[in-house]
Amino acid sequence: MARWQPDARGRLAAAALELFAERGFDQTTVTDIAARAGLDKRTFYRLFGDKREALFSGSDQLETILVKAIAEAGAAPFDTVVAAYRRVAEEVFAGRLDSVRVRQTIIESSPELQERELRKTVSLAAAVAAALRAKGVGETAATLAAESGSTVFRVAFAQWVAPGNETSLADLIAEAAAELRAVTSP
Amino acid sequence: MARWQPDARGRLAAAALELFAERGFDQTTVTDIAARAGLDKRTFYRLFGDKREALFSGSDQLETILVKAIAEAGAAPFDTVVAAYRRVAEEVFAGRLDSVRVRQTIIESSPELQERELRKTVSLAAAVAAALRAKGVGETAATLAAESGSTVFRVAFAQWVAPGNETSLADLIAEAAAELRAVTSP
Repeated sequence: MARWQPDARGRLAAAALELFAERGFDQTTVTDIAARAGLDKRTFYRLFGDKREALFSGSDQLETILVKAIAEAGAAPFDTVVAAYRRVAEEVFAGRLDSVRVRQTIIESSPELQERELRKTVSLAAAVAAALRAKGVGETAATLAAESGSTVFRVAFAQWVAPGNETSLADLIAEAAAELRAVTSP
Repeated sequence: MARWQPDARGRLAAAALELFAERGFDQTTVTDIAARAGLDKRTFYRLFGDKREALFSGSDQLETILVKAIAEAGAAPFDTVVAAYRRVAEEVFAGRLDSVRVRQTIIESSPELQERELRKTVSLAAAVAAALRAKGVGETAATLAAESGSTVFRVAFAQWVAPGNETSLADLIAEAAAELRAVTSP
């Protein structure tokens, strides 16, 4: 089945999102997901470690964009991180609010998925800190800038997916960064 | 066995720490822990949900001190949170570096324990944010101050347990808070 597979990864991720939303995460099997995508189970396992991973297929892309944006930037560490998250907002999330909301609802329905999301957040902040260090930012400053950027992104993201919101994620990131500065300024 | 139990909770936590350090987390059973503490398994399960919890018995105390310190403080949100963590440093951690280092080594040996620690950190930050909101701090400012305080504490804690460190946790928290301010200032 399906020897020619344009974007098998994207099709499987989309099928997983649909099925988790329709039936619930626990009630969906890898066989169901593969069938919905018109592919087989073996293809699924070649591309994803497990059922949960199908919901986190974007996070490698996110890390790649963040790390690249940081490597290219010339500003102070925290500004660099905030600008990198705004680039992610524009390149990954803009125009996708509906499907991101569906995904968030699925994640909130399962402690197992919440845990995976939490671990992805931690490893993303670690990658950002490493990218800053690679530019010569000191050990502690790199961690603090990366963690502060992660906080700003999480706060802005929660506001973005909240019911009734119409502000763009990039603008919410800029606002949360300004508010973090205000909150921590002496 | 042991009908009279002065601080059964503390004895079980100490026995768990000893045994995890001696034999490893996976190789230690609840029966072993109870026996080392001179108590029975039933007493263990009355006080802890599972084997992992014996290593996190201090985190309720930590939350209580933090929330109380925040309720009593009169300063700006981030200052309040930093001061609360410094109080925790003095009331919970001062003079306990050796056993805290043992505990950290155990946690780092097990993904299961790392995950539990991560979840405790997240729920502690949520409790801090709630305590700030209860004082009238706005929704977003409360989250940002709580998360920034959590970042400062984690950075300072990692420096405190690192080999060769001789600075107190309270001082490291003050230094990390000053560096976070410097990193995020425009």
